[in-house]
Amino acid sequence: MSQSLAEMLGPDVLFFDEPTRREFAGDKWSQGALPDMVARPRTTAEVATILAWANERAVSVTPRGAGWGYVGGAITNRGGVLLSLDRLNAIREISGDDFVAVVEAGVLTGDLQEAVKARGLFYPPDPASLKYSSIGGNIAANAGGPRCLKYGVTRHYVLGLEVVLPDGRILQLGGRTHKNKTGFDLLGLFVGSEGMLGVVTGATLRLLPHPPARAALSAIFPTLEGAASGVKAIFAAGILPAATEIADAFTLRCFRESQGLPLDENAGAHVLVECDGQLSSVREELELVAHALKTAGASEISRATSEADVEALWQTRRAFSLSLNAPNRAKLNEDIVVPRGKLLELVAFCEALGARHGVQIACFGHAGDGNIHVNLLLPTDPDAPENSQEKAQSALDELFAQVLSWGGAITGEHGIGLAKARWWPEAVSCEVREMHREMKRLFDPIGILNPGKWV
Amino acid sequence: MSQSLAEMLGPDVLFFDEPTRREFAGDKWSQGALPDMVARPRTTAEVATILAWANERAVSVTPRGAGWGYVGGAITNRGGVLLSLDRLNAIREISGDDFVAVVEAGVLTGDLQEAVKARGLFYPPDPASLKYSSIGGNIAANAGGPRCLKYGVTRHYVLGLEVVLPDGRILQLGGRTHKNKTGFDLLGLFVGSEGMLGVVTGATLRLLPHPPARAALSAIFPTLEGAASGVKAIFAAGILPAATEIADAFTLRCFRESQGLPLDENAGAHVLVECDGQLSSVREELELVAHALKTAGASEISRATSEADVEALWQTRRAFSLSLNAPNRAKLNEDIVVPRGKLLELVAFCEALGARHGVQIACFGHAGDGNIHVNLLLPTDPDAPENSQEKAQSALDELFAQVLSWGGAITGEHGIGLAKARWWPEAVSCEVREMHREMKRLFDPIGILNPGKWV
Repeated sequence: MSQSLAEMLGPDVLFFDEPTRREFAGDKWSQGALPDMVARPRTTAEVATILAWANERAVSVTPRGAGWGYVGGAITNRGGVLLSLDRLNAIREISGDDFVAVVEAGVLTGDLQEAVKARGLFYPPDPASLKYSSIGGNIAANAGGPRCLKYGVTRHYVLGLEVVLPDGRILQLGGRTHKNKTGFDLLGLFVGSEGMLGVVTGATLRLLPHPPARAALSAIFPTLEGAASGVKAIFAAGILPAATEIADAFTLRCFRESQGLPLDENAGAHVLVECDGQLSSVREELELVAHALKTAGASEISRATSEADVEALWQTRRAFSLSLNAPNRAKLNEDIVVPRGKLLELVAFCEALGARHGVQIACFGHAGDGNIHVNLLLPTDPDAPENSQEKAQSALDELFAQVLSWGGAITGEHGIGLAKARWWPEAVSCEVREMHREMKRLFDPIGILNPGKWV
Repeated sequence: MSQSLAEMLGPDVLFFDEPTRREFAGDKWSQGALPDMVARPRTTAEVATILAWANERAVSVTPRGAGWGYVGGAITNRGGVLLSLDRLNAIREISGDDFVAVVEAGVLTGDLQEAVKARGLFYPPDPASLKYSSIGGNIAANAGGPRCLKYGVTRHYVLGLEVVLPDGRILQLGGRTHKNKTGFDLLGLFVGSEGMLGVVTGATLRLLPHPPARAALSAIFPTLEGAASGVKAIFAAGILPAATEIADAFTLRCFRESQGLPLDENAGAHVLVECDGQLSSVREELELVAHALKTAGASEISRATSEADVEALWQTRRAFSLSLNAPNRAKLNEDIVVPRGKLLELVAFCEALGARHGVQIACFGHAGDGNIHVNLLLPTDPDAPENSQEKAQSALDELFAQVLSWGGAITGEHGIGLAKARWWPEAVSCEVREMHREMKRLFDPIGILNPGKWV
């Protein structure tokens, strides 16, 4: 049956060989079952052909950006077609007059940022994966990043979308204006829909003028309480930094060990703050931030006002995450969100949770918006791998129950996918789940798109 | 039949007298046909009772915020129940720890802004009507305002919603976290849905730290070309002002006439720019803005660095709109949006359009995001009022056709309502219109909510 699709598409679009099917089967969370075939279309029309073909035959289609998701959202678990958007990678237009970029879904976010920066323009969303993840993937997950404290998430930058529906119809939603109140927000419905309602093939994105300067500082606090009150003092001074990141003592310990540095018993927390804007205002804000943090008890403050020094601080921050990786343990990174005021309670809860379940837990992330990455580190037991699986499951059950009871969310920027499907029924009401199913039936009546996930 | 509803609700919720029905029948666009009754519930539960009652009997329900819409979106044109949210006006909570406000739909936007400001917090959306319009109305229209250039529209500040569906079910969507990627963006679907999918009774809103300072300047340019290149130069300097407003020569003429000032033949355009942030950075940015505008040919620049002086500049700007009102003419305010680079073409087109149709057209508005208020001034002919109606209709047909052909939008922040229903079919494709009808059927199968409008 797939012969006819291959004929419609011409050579070099469908791949049936095992290495390709293997290459495209996984994401950063896990390796999936192999798809029956990998489709790598080069145009929106080819995407439409593939979807219409699959829809007629009720064949599953799993859309995939660059494979950098953290929740298995692009993993094929029902065979069928793995639809990779990686070849739709043209930046169609960058307009300095209209402050928009028109891109295909497969463009890497970092590449877009570089291209617009060269024109004095700015695309703010900055997921940690930006060098490897695609705009299409960012849209599917409504990606965030440190800078969304000041600038907002991906949704706030999507002005227009080109979407292919499961039956092959191509929809143009929104446009290239910075404001638009024409009709219901259908466009917003596709942002964050994890490839379950339609396949985004292109987007028109809002750009800002590029801030001429940025500066950052990092601070060590003897206690997390001090760090949290420092963050509070920054906001109280009327400052909205571009980013405000926090890391706990355990994360710092792993980092110093991995770097061969002596342990610092007084390093109870790490805070990284970045400001951007005009050169002198950025420097002034940095001094105000330093003052707020010092008053709150920061013991060491490093300032960075050159591009290179700012990057170096971020390198250190990114190394925190890498330092948690070790060959003899597995890391589960959960991007939960708590109301901003619950930061301290969250870290204290995680400490106790780790002790109860015999797992180490490292907390770091976006303090400014309460979106903390809770990393469970599980010793892998080669004799009984299912033990550590079970441990993780029950620790996560408790974590998510607590987060939800605080009015928090089980995911801030990664999505649900397969990894969090277990907690989806706890996270929203019956009515909301039923509404999701109805929405799914409306856009994808046969249910071919990304089946077997959480809806 | 309505007797039973009155019994369920108790006294003082339903009103059948003509003065009340008249008082609640119109908005800022027009007076509607009288509803059969006005309901003024005090709780979400009462809203649910009213909707469930109406849904069982297929009685039309038109939700209404504070009646400050500009497109007739809250006008009852099918009789039934006018459901006013004005009594649901409690600010339930302002949390300085979580940076959220929990409010009922009837709270006036200006009242909320004052209340949070007293706590050092900031709710940015600032529609011109903010002293009179309600949060619920702002949500129904996804309201903007000058400041959304920097801060984004109402949607970007809605974290959680309490919505009553037509069948009386109460939905809680989102929550009080600043980020949330749990499920599809159903919450966003209700923002901007003009009371056609459900009735928003409460919202949890995102707050920012209040910027400690703001400053503004206004500039007169001999030509609109100069003003437009000045605005471009501001962005090129890497500055994203809080607001960047522009007004054309005709608007300035009306304003000077209304103030009894001598006409200034060299006043071809007016630009108002506001910056906010830390005190010294704001002042520095203002000098950079002044430099950019001077270089582009600004002839007069007035700086305002105190709160009172900044307010005075905005007063003048607001007076532009009022000066267009005159007893012998009607004003039609169309909040179209063009891609940012099309500003000059738009104003030139409107001049020619006015000349062709014998109507005066004043353009002013949010230059930064291309959202220009095009005001058609129509001499009212008491002998043949339909003449001016027809003139307006055909001038607007041409205006919207041109805006759409540029990739613009027929509404940026007011919505469609009744006023723009005529151009809805031109504004989006058949597929998108059909998708709206399906969405409407999903949420409101009997079609009781705000019927006879544009879907």
